[in-house]
Amino acid sequence: MKFNIQRNQLMESVQDVMKAISSKTAIPILSGMKIEVTEEGVTLTGSDSDISIESFIPKEEDGIVYIDGIEPGSIVLQAKYFPDIVKKLPDQTVEMKSDDQFNVTIKSGHAEFNLNGQDAEEYPQLPKLKTENSFEISVDLLKDLIRQTVFAVSTSETRPILTGVNMSIKDDKLHFVATDSHRLASRNIPIKDIQEQHISNVIIPGKSLNELNKILADTQEKIEISVTDNQILFRTEHLYFLSRLLDGNYPETSRLIPEQSKTNIVIDSKELLHSIDRASLLAKESRNNVVRLVTKENETLEISSNSPEVGKVQEEVKADSIDGEELKISFSAKYLMDALKVINSEKVVISFTGAMRPFIINPIENSDEILQLILPVRTY
Amino acid sequence: MKFNIQRNQLMESVQDVMKAISSKTAIPILSGMKIEVTEEGVTLTGSDSDISIESFIPKEEDGIVYIDGIEPGSIVLQAKYFPDIVKKLPDQTVEMKSDDQFNVTIKSGHAEFNLNGQDAEEYPQLPKLKTENSFEISVDLLKDLIRQTVFAVSTSETRPILTGVNMSIKDDKLHFVATDSHRLASRNIPIKDIQEQHISNVIIPGKSLNELNKILADTQEKIEISVTDNQILFRTEHLYFLSRLLDGNYPETSRLIPEQSKTNIVIDSKELLHSIDRASLLAKESRNNVVRLVTKENETLEISSNSPEVGKVQEEVKADSIDGEELKISFSAKYLMDALKVINSEKVVISFTGAMRPFIINPIENSDEILQLILPVRTY
Repeated sequence: MKFNIQRNQLMESVQDVMKAISSKTAIPILSGMKIEVTEEGVTLTGSDSDISIESFIPKEEDGIVYIDGIEPGSIVLQAKYFPDIVKKLPDQTVEMKSDDQFNVTIKSGHAEFNLNGQDAEEYPQLPKLKTENSFEISVDLLKDLIRQTVFAVSTSETRPILTGVNMSIKDDKLHFVATDSHRLASRNIPIKDIQEQHISNVIIPGKSLNELNKILADTQEKIEISVTDNQILFRTEHLYFLSRLLDGNYPETSRLIPEQSKTNIVIDSKELLHSIDRASLLAKESRNNVVRLVTKENETLEISSNSPEVGKVQEEVKADSIDGEELKISFSAKYLMDALKVINSEKVVISFTGAMRPFIINPIENSDEILQLILPVRTY
Repeated sequence: MKFNIQRNQLMESVQDVMKAISSKTAIPILSGMKIEVTEEGVTLTGSDSDISIESFIPKEEDGIVYIDGIEPGSIVLQAKYFPDIVKKLPDQTVEMKSDDQFNVTIKSGHAEFNLNGQDAEEYPQLPKLKTENSFEISVDLLKDLIRQTVFAVSTSETRPILTGVNMSIKDDKLHFVATDSHRLASRNIPIKDIQEQHISNVIIPGKSLNELNKILADTQEKIEISVTDNQILFRTEHLYFLSRLLDGNYPETSRLIPEQSKTNIVIDSKELLHSIDRASLLAKESRNNVVRLVTKENETLEISSNSPEVGKVQEEVKADSIDGEELKISFSAKYLMDALKVINSEKVVISFTGAMRPFIINPIENSDEILQLILPVRTY
C-alpha cells in the first residue's frame, strides 16, 4: 500500500471516522482505523460495533487532485495516535506506505513516523445493507430533526428503548420523536415522491444520532437513509454511517399529547428563555431545578423560584397574549430551556391544560412541525 | 447598604475577587464575598486565607459615573451564586441593597433576587501591611516574570518550598526563579532608582502567582509590590492582592547552572518546538515523554523517539549553527516545550555540557535575562 495525500483532506476524514472508534472495545482490532487504498481513492473505516463510519477521499474531485502515487492495499493502524500525528505533520502533503510486515511509514517534510500496523484481513467486514426501504432528505433538514429531538432521549438504561429516537414515516411525513417520560420532543417534515414505505418502528440510539449530527456539515446536499430490521444506514457521497437499531416497541406517544388546552400564552422565545435561566440559578441544587410560572393581569407572567437556604428570585415577563384560565404551574427549568433553545422561532405558543397536566410548546409559525411537551412538577 | 451600579463594572470585579474564593474552606464565612459600600465606591473582598483579593469600584472615574444612590454599609453574600446572577441580569444597571436582617435584594430590569446575606462584622479583617520593603514595576513586566518561571514550580508537596517562586533583588535586578529539581526557570529584569532593599528569600506560592497573572490585564501601568516576613502585597489603583509567603530557605540554585559549555546550538525556536512536539506524540505514555537529540553533519539535528509498542518517529531539523563537540542526549519533551513556549525569541541558543549534565536554553537577544535549564534523562 502506498499513496501521497493532501494533509487537510486526510485530517477531515480521520476526525469523522474517529467518532466511531472507542479505546474501550471488547474487540481489540476495533481500537484501530482501517485504511484501504484503491485506484479510486482512500477509504477510512472506524467502528465500535454499534456505530460504523466509512469516509472516502476520492483521488480527484472537481479537477483537484487529492491523492497520487497510488499502490492499492490496506492496513489497520492504532487509532489513538493517528489523529494527533496527522494534525501535527509539518507539510501539506503526506506520504503513507506499508510493507508486508504491516509496518507503516508516514512521511511529511523532514518528519518520518514508523508505526506498527495490523493485517486489514482481520478487520470485521461492515455489512452491506440490502433493502428497498430507502429515501432521501437534505442534510440540513436531517440535522434539524436530530437537534430538535435527540436531547429528550432518556439517559437511564431502565427503559433502554427510551434512549433512542423513534423514526417513522406516515401520511407523507417523516417523524422523529424522543421522550424520557418526563418530556417529549417531536419534529416532522413533509416528505414527497416517496414510494409506500414500511417504516414505523425504527428506534435509532440517541448516541448514534449525536455523532452523526457532529459529522454532517450544514449543507443542502442529499443524504440517503436506508433501513433494515436491525440497522440503519446514512449515506452521502463520501460518507457511510451505519448504526444498529434498538430492539423493541416504541411506546405510543400520541395519546400523551393533550388535544385541548385551557390557557394559551404567546411570548417572545428569548425573553422567556433568559427569564427561566435566571430563575433557575438558585434552584439548581436544592429544588431539582424547579421554577414556578403564574399568570397575572395585563398579559404578564411571573416566573419565580425559591430555595430556602439561598434565597428567592422573581421576575415579571410581558407576554404577547395570555388567553383562557388563570394558571399556577411548576416545572423543570432545564426542560423548558432545552425546548426553547431548539425551537427556531422568535415567538412561541405555550398551551396548558391545568397545573397537573403536560403542557406543549410550539413555534408560532409551522406550528404542526415542532412540538415540545413537558410534564409539570407537583410542589404541594 | 444601598447602591446602583453598572453591571459590567460589577461583573469584572466579581470575577477578579472570585479567584480567591474557594467553596472548600474551613472558615464558612470565607465561602462568601464581602461587599463594602462607602461614599467613595464599592469594595469587594474574597479570601481563602492563603490569598486575599480586594477590588475597588470607584463611584466615578474619568468623568464616568459607575455608582450612584449610595447608602454606606456592608454585607457578606454567598459567593457561589453571585457571579452567575450578575452575569445573567437583564439590565445594564443593578440595584443592590441590604436590610438589618442581612436580607439582600438585587434588582435589574424586571428581575428581583432576594438572597440571605451574613453580617460583614464576622468577616475576618485583612491585615494592613506595614513595610518599607516596597517597589514598583510595570504590570506587563510582572506578568512576564510570572509566566516565564511559574510553570517550573514543583507540583509535589514533598519539598513544599519548591512549590513557590523565589523572588529576590540583587545588583539592581529583580530575579524570579523556580525549580522542581528536574528543571529550572529564571528571569530577571533591571530595576532602577530603588533604595537598598533587603529582599532575598521571598518565596511566593506558585498558585498565588498564577491567580494574580490571570487577574492582571496586560498594561504598562505600575504595580506596587510590598513584602513583610510572611506576606506579599501586589497593589494597583483598584486591586489589592495579598498572598502568604512560603516559610523556609530557598535552595541556592546558581551553582546548578553550568558555567562552560561543550556544544552550542543556535536554532529557530518554533521549528524546534514543533519537531519536539511531533517526536513526543508516541512517547507520551511508555517512555515518560522522553525524546532524543543527536547532532549530525551540516548543521542538522536529529530528533527522535521510540516507543516499541507503537512505533518510532524521527525528524531532521536544520539549525542555524552547531558548534563544539558531537552530542547524543535524551530529555523530557514536555520540559523543553514548556521552556521554548515562554521564551519570546525567534531564535534560541542551547548550551550543552555533555549528555549527563544539565543544559541551558537562552533567547539569542537579551540572553542574560531569561535562562531555562533542563536535566537530561539517562537512557542506557
